[in-house]
Amino acid sequence: MPNSSDAPTSHDAAEAPSEPVKTDVAVIGAGPVGLFAVFECGMLKMSCHVIDALDDVGGQLTALYPEKPIYDIPGHPDILAGDLIANLEAQAAPFHPTYHLSQQVTALASKPDGRWQLTTSKGVSIDAGAVIIAAGVGAFGPNRPPLDGIQDFEGLGAGLGVNYLVKRREDFRGKKVIIAGGGDSAVDWAVSLAEVAESIKVVHRRPKFRAAPETVQRMEALAKSGNVELVVPYQLAGLEGGPDGLNAVRVADLDGNDRVLEADVLLPFFGLSQNIGPIAEWKLGIEHNHISVDPATMNAGRAGIFGAGDIVSYPGKLKLILMGFSEAALAAHSARDHIHPNEAYHFEHSTSSGVPGSA
Amino acid sequence: MPNSSDAPTSHDAAEAPSEPVKTDVAVIGAGPVGLFAVFECGMLKMSCHVIDALDDVGGQLTALYPEKPIYDIPGHPDILAGDLIANLEAQAAPFHPTYHLSQQVTALASKPDGRWQLTTSKGVSIDAGAVIIAAGVGAFGPNRPPLDGIQDFEGLGAGLGVNYLVKRREDFRGKKVIIAGGGDSAVDWAVSLAEVAESIKVVHRRPKFRAAPETVQRMEALAKSGNVELVVPYQLAGLEGGPDGLNAVRVADLDGNDRVLEADVLLPFFGLSQNIGPIAEWKLGIEHNHISVDPATMNAGRAGIFGAGDIVSYPGKLKLILMGFSEAALAAHSARDHIHPNEAYHFEHSTSSGVPGSA
Repeated sequence: MPNSSDAPTSHDAAEAPSEPVKTDVAVIGAGPVGLFAVFECGMLKMSCHVIDALDDVGGQLTALYPEKPIYDIPGHPDILAGDLIANLEAQAAPFHPTYHLSQQVTALASKPDGRWQLTTSKGVSIDAGAVIIAAGVGAFGPNRPPLDGIQDFEGLGAGLGVNYLVKRREDFRGKKVIIAGGGDSAVDWAVSLAEVAESIKVVHRRPKFRAAPETVQRMEALAKSGNVELVVPYQLAGLEGGPDGLNAVRVADLDGNDRVLEADVLLPFFGLSQNIGPIAEWKLGIEHNHISVDPATMNAGRAGIFGAGDIVSYPGKLKLILMGFSEAALAAHSARDHIHPNEAYHFEHSTSSGVPGSA
Repeated sequence: MPNSSDAPTSHDAAEAPSEPVKTDVAVIGAGPVGLFAVFECGMLKMSCHVIDALDDVGGQLTALYPEKPIYDIPGHPDILAGDLIANLEAQAAPFHPTYHLSQQVTALASKPDGRWQLTTSKGVSIDAGAVIIAAGVGAFGPNRPPLDGIQDFEGLGAGLGVNYLVKRREDFRGKKVIIAGGGDSAVDWAVSLAEVAESIKVVHRRPKFRAAPETVQRMEALAKSGNVELVVPYQLAGLEGGPDGLNAVRVADLDGNDRVLEADVLLPFFGLSQNIGPIAEWKLGIEHNHISVDPATMNAGRAGIFGAGDIVSYPGKLKLILMGFSEAALAAHSARDHIHPNEAYHFEHSTSSGVPGSA
């Protein structure tokens, strides 16, 4: 867990409503872009409080695919998502951010003195000079297939019942695994888990998969050699099991013909439901669940409110983590200009100024 | 040296004028941003030829401060400039760029078929579908102090005569070092070389140094303890020595009082002279040695010509390497749209598509 030398610290479920804590910048979202915003604010001598709905920093990278390699982080030819988050957290740590996890920002209100008042779902109150919204796709969760009683099979543990993500491949060793879906996640995990599972069956309603061609080819080669079975075109129809867990998954084709597939675990990969939640109520320029920002400043339409990362849109925006880093730097500079409008700024490169604690 | 599996390879001083080599994208500049542009183009299945005036890839990071730590590369809390370049080169390598080093692009001409023809100072001719200019500050070199006969003391080797940069601290071990200048480089190296040199004298025309306050304090503490001598306010006045090298540096104050400082090596740090050279003639929107680009596409004003990194300007531009990475990604996407205007594009994240050679 991150450094949080400033009082009050967080991570405390009992965190009580209290006096507002004062900070330079409130960062909403502790994913990769939010973490880098903390670093950039720190380089500009601004303190940060960071709020995130999840229990850990890292956003989707930690919650959904910590063991997945990423290849397009500049200067990292190959890094696991979880390691990238650990590095970003370490990079922000010298500036002592305070993290308020497992809670959402439920209200954002302008104050008469030009500052902003944030309130979280745990009753924490933050008085900030500026706000950087780096909330990604907002609160997110897997799309659940509409199967009777599916909830009974959720939460049984990794590798058992219905799982919506793979945190560790090892949890699937020796298991009868049913994967449902036809996108990148379904295909990637079919290939990857084939190395450890007892059996892999991939259920998809079309014979064609919509994923990286190279990986589809590898899955089809595994199907040919008998290491993966492609159950197509079929859809999920039901779950069979009892208090001990899942026994089988029922599937049906378009003519209503059923098959029953023996199973220890079902992995449905039908995408993420995304919800920016209360942010939609904050009188920012919201379009299709994104915040329109001025690309020159990352300003989100109200003085002192900035955006960065996948939640923002502007002409030319690409949803790449590396572009979010750049937006975070710009948002931090704009936040500084907002908080200290009259201060001359001797722009320093990191090579000359260094960071606290670096010799 | 980089991979260059495609014929023709480069690095060959005898590289002869010949048939134009055909490539998707010509990248001008092999600094960090140019190298990352190669990677991004590769992810979009475009080949690259890269041209740079220097003898090595890496631009200023390799030429001026390979051993300097950088703190603001996202996901790298602390990385040496030279290591960052090595990583970026490795990240680009799977896409087999061809590097044409030690040469400048002297001419850029549009072709009737909409492609671009580049010619280098070594007579290499490149036929490219698009061009990404990532030339940094252009050709650069140290500002030379106006001292009679200074050329005679240049090129004597690291740690001898007049040096304009420190590649390895070890070259200065046991030496009598005179540093001239009052900025970050002068102060940083005074502090750093104090650990290895026999003596360090810092000549500056003012008593006040314009550098990171923390480092100035450290230098002043070294001055107090006798490890560094601050020769202020003085200016360089002359060099003394012979065929064997430098013996002393003459300095004078504003009243014309001289001092003679025994010396093995003089390090003048008076900034870089910068020159974008032939680029100024290419009918792009040039202002104050920068190329104005459309921030939504990085287009430089002519169809198929894009910019990225410190050479570009647009509203909000910050001269940060990490922002150059983002611009390189955008320029690569725009180059792809230019080269393949009618191709539908299934946008893939690196986590799903991977890179060649990654399993």
